[in-house]
Amino acid sequence: MAQTVLLDVSGVLYQGSRAVPGAVQALSRLRAAGRQVRCLTNSTRQPKRRIMGKLRDLGFGIQPEEVFTPVAAALAWLERTGHSPHLLVHPALEEEFQDCKGGGPPAVVVGDAGPAFCYENMNRAFRVLLEGAPLLALADNRVFMDEDGRLSLDAGPFIKALEFASAAKPKLFGKPDPEFFRAAVASTGCSPQQAAMIGDDAESDVAGALAAGLAAGYLVRTGKYRDGDETRFDPQPTATAADVLEAVDRLLAQDGA
Amino acid sequence: MAQTVLLDVSGVLYQGSRAVPGAVQALSRLRAAGRQVRCLTNSTRQPKRRIMGKLRDLGFGIQPEEVFTPVAAALAWLERTGHSPHLLVHPALEEEFQDCKGGGPPAVVVGDAGPAFCYENMNRAFRVLLEGAPLLALADNRVFMDEDGRLSLDAGPFIKALEFASAAKPKLFGKPDPEFFRAAVASTGCSPQQAAMIGDDAESDVAGALAAGLAAGYLVRTGKYRDGDETRFDPQPTATAADVLEAVDRLLAQDGA
Repeated sequence: MAQTVLLDVSGVLYQGSRAVPGAVQALSRLRAAGRQVRCLTNSTRQPKRRIMGKLRDLGFGIQPEEVFTPVAAALAWLERTGHSPHLLVHPALEEEFQDCKGGGPPAVVVGDAGPAFCYENMNRAFRVLLEGAPLLALADNRVFMDEDGRLSLDAGPFIKALEFASAAKPKLFGKPDPEFFRAAVASTGCSPQQAAMIGDDAESDVAGALAAGLAAGYLVRTGKYRDGDETRFDPQPTATAADVLEAVDRLLAQDGA
Repeated sequence: MAQTVLLDVSGVLYQGSRAVPGAVQALSRLRAAGRQVRCLTNSTRQPKRRIMGKLRDLGFGIQPEEVFTPVAAALAWLERTGHSPHLLVHPALEEEFQDCKGGGPPAVVVGDAGPAFCYENMNRAFRVLLEGAPLLALADNRVFMDEDGRLSLDAGPFIKALEFASAAKPKLFGKPDPEFFRAAVASTGCSPQQAAMIGDDAESDVAGALAAGLAAGYLVRTGKYRDGDETRFDPQPTATAADVLEAVDRLLAQDGA
C-alpha cells in the first residue's frame, strides 16, 4: 500500500495561475484516506515562499515542511563543502542563496534561469567551470509547460550545453536524483516501497521515482504531458491517468481504500 | 605525399585581428612546394566576404574559391529541399541567407550566434523544432579562442541543448562532417589519401579529417589548443606542432620536399 504519496506541483496541482481541476479535491481525498503527502517540485523560477503562497491562494492545505525543492539540498551541499555559489539562476531565486556564507572556491549553480540564460551568463559560467568549479544542477528537466500553454526550454538543455563545452559532470539536486525522492519519503517515516509518485513528467517524475525504488509512478495527462510520453522513457509509468484526481482515485482503489 | 593541404583559419592563420607568427610564410612555402591549399573554416560569426577581407589585409594570398565555409553547403541543402531558413545565427551572418528563396516549411539553421543565443531565440527555435522542423548545424564546435585570449562557447553547446530538448538530430554542414572535408579535397582533383589537414581543434579539425580518410592531421598548439588536447579525442593527431609554420615544415620534410 502506498502510505506516502509524492506529488509534482506545476502541471499536476496547478498550471500557470490556476489550480488543475479536481486537484484540491484529490489532495483532500489523500488526507481523508490517511495518506501522507509530500510535494516535490523542480521549479526554480521562483523561491519556495512564492510557491507556498500560490498553493495557499489556490486552496491547497499544504505546509512548508511538506514541500521539497532542490535549493535546500544544494544549499546544504554548499554549506558542507564551503563552496561559494556562482549563480546562473532566475533573478527571483537569488534571494534563497543570500545567506550562503561560502568563502571557498566557486561552484556553478544552475536553475531554470529563463531570460537569464543569455550568452554572456552562459559563457561566464562556462569559464568558471573550465577553471575546475563543480557544476550543480538544481534540476535537469528538458521542458516545462509555459504560461502560454506551450512547451518551453527548462534548465536541462542549458546544463547539457555547459557539460558538453566544459566536460564538467553535473551534480543533480532535484528530480530524478534518487536521493531527492528518498529524502522526501524518509521525512514521512516510510520506506520507498511504501510510496508512490504522481507527476506530469514521464522522465523526471515517473521514471525517476521508479528508479529510486518507489512502489508506483502515475503519469498524468496534464501539464507538460505529450502523446506518447508513457512509452518514451524507462521505466515506464505504472499507470497513466487523465489528471491528479483520477490518479488518486485509482491509487486508493488499488490499495483497497 | 600530401598534394593538398587543408588549413583551418581562426587560431591557425590568424588569431583575433593578427596573423599567427609565421603563418604567411607557411602558406608561401606550401605554394612554393607546389601544394594545393584549401581553407576550411567553421567560423560563422561573420560572412565569408569579411573573412576574405581579413585574410587579404593580413597578407595571405588566398582566393575565395580556396575557402570553404559551412554556409554554402547549408544554402545548397535549403535550395534543394525547398525549406525556409529559421535563423539562429549571428546578426552579421544573416546577409548570406538573404537570397534564399525558401517558401517551404521551416528548417532551423544554427551557427555561432554569440549574443543572439538568448533564451527567447533559443526557445523560439526549440518550438519550431518541436513542430518537426529539421535542425541544421553550421558547425558544432564546443569552444573557440575568443578575442580576449580565453575560450568561449561556440555553437556546439547550444545545438546540443536544442537536440536534448527536442530530440531533433542535427544535420551538420561544417567540420567534422566528412562530406565537408571531401568536397574541399575534391575541388583540387586529389583523393583524401593525398591530403593533410592542419588545425587547432583536435576534435573537429584533426580527428574529423582523419575520420574522413585524409592521410594526416596536424594539431597546432596555437588558437584554442589546450594541454592534453592531443590525447583527448580519437583518432589522435598524426603529429603536433608549435604552430602552422612548424607543421608545414614537418609536413614538407615528411614528403621529402
